[in-house]
Amino acid sequence: MNDVIELLMSHRSIRKFKSDAIASETLEAIVRAGQAAATSSYVQATTVIRVTKPETRKALADCAGGQVYVEQAAEFLVFCADLARAGLCCEMQGVEAVNDFTEHFIIATVDVALMAQNTVIAAESEGLGICYIGGLRNQPQAVSELLALPEHVYPVFGLCLGYPDQEVDQRPRLPLSVVLKTDTYADTGDRETINEYDEAVKSYYAKRLGGQKTRSWTQQVAGVAGKESRPHMLGFLQSKGFLKR
Amino acid sequence: MNDVIELLMSHRSIRKFKSDAIASETLEAIVRAGQAAATSSYVQATTVIRVTKPETRKALADCAGGQVYVEQAAEFLVFCADLARAGLCCEMQGVEAVNDFTEHFIIATVDVALMAQNTVIAAESEGLGICYIGGLRNQPQAVSELLALPEHVYPVFGLCLGYPDQEVDQRPRLPLSVVLKTDTYADTGDRETINEYDEAVKSYYAKRLGGQKTRSWTQQVAGVAGKESRPHMLGFLQSKGFLKR
Repeated sequence: MNDVIELLMSHRSIRKFKSDAIASETLEAIVRAGQAAATSSYVQATTVIRVTKPETRKALADCAGGQVYVEQAAEFLVFCADLARAGLCCEMQGVEAVNDFTEHFIIATVDVALMAQNTVIAAESEGLGICYIGGLRNQPQAVSELLALPEHVYPVFGLCLGYPDQEVDQRPRLPLSVVLKTDTYADTGDRETINEYDEAVKSYYAKRLGGQKTRSWTQQVAGVAGKESRPHMLGFLQSKGFLKR
Repeated sequence: MNDVIELLMSHRSIRKFKSDAIASETLEAIVRAGQAAATSSYVQATTVIRVTKPETRKALADCAGGQVYVEQAAEFLVFCADLARAGLCCEMQGVEAVNDFTEHFIIATVDVALMAQNTVIAAESEGLGICYIGGLRNQPQAVSELLALPEHVYPVFGLCLGYPDQEVDQRPRLPLSVVLKTDTYADTGDRETINEYDEAVKSYYAKRLGGQKTRSWTQQVAGVAGKESRPHMLGFLQSKGFLKR
């Protein structure tokens, strides 16, 4: 295993940070490293908002359901899917923009995630810890107003960055045989493997939290897929000019 | 700039590969490194299909609009957003799955992209070259049939992997001031900066291709956002149980 793969394998979400600031050259270097990721059709559909104002941080933490590390992290970046800039390109070329197809939404959302993950790897290579904040999608309209996001821009997730002030174990991942398949999706044996994996996840929680959280993996996932999830998203996105057709 | 950031900054899409195979331990190590990426609510909504059959490769290359490197690369992986496994978790927990919300689609699509980008970085750290193949979304139904993808699974993109057999320059990225903003989206001055960037992109193409392709960046993006893009995607995704509400 080379050093880079070792770095990737050592990822944990960090939610407690030292008060040390991140040098602006470091922040710029990691976002530039983010930009170096692949981008669909060269669209570069990501805009990153660096949030410095304490009152905005506080409001965003509230939007995310009271995640205090959004306020406390040295830096907080909001990764936005941005098709407004593509609209500007159309205007500059004298072409009418029709950037509201589902495919445009996929292009932009994937672009954001690829750039963010590169930014994360760069940050971790500099000794920083990170935590993605999908909770911004609890209140995407409020987040959009706080950041003055125009039409055709939506906040995909936030990212806390700072020097770690905690030790965290990595939650075990699914066995490779469940995730990597050959030639077709055929899922023979997945159920048995997942049953065994459930036991490993329960052991992990028992060890880490002394029995406070003993939910298995299937219980946790059923908690997400077994109930409605942010049912406002479709309406919000359509109001911002996404996913119209 | 540390070695990892240097690796990230050196990314280029590779479309011509040596015939050398990728050792199975290497392939497994890079997909495991992919799994180590963050995953929303621990859902792990990615399934990767490794395509080994030449006839399937050929058919997928055709789906992608005749991209021959899909056939020629040492490995070709299809990264699928998978909520069927979350459905299995619901079944195992005796809960009815309601995994057809737009939010579930975002969770799964972002999960796939984060895992894929980690896989890419791991691959490049091993000296491999990669190329994302969004073109699979030209014919997502045909791709789904070729790979026997069940309901609640869709092919987000493919990934060619192999040892590079070409030198490629990196296309210049947008200036940081356009992409990284402070506190609000305010876009003062973006248009001027993009005009200058357009000239840099034209120079890059003139140098690289000897004037064969002189399109500016805004021209290229207007080509994507100024016309309908894969208009079948919404219907396809809904037929697979995504984006229903």
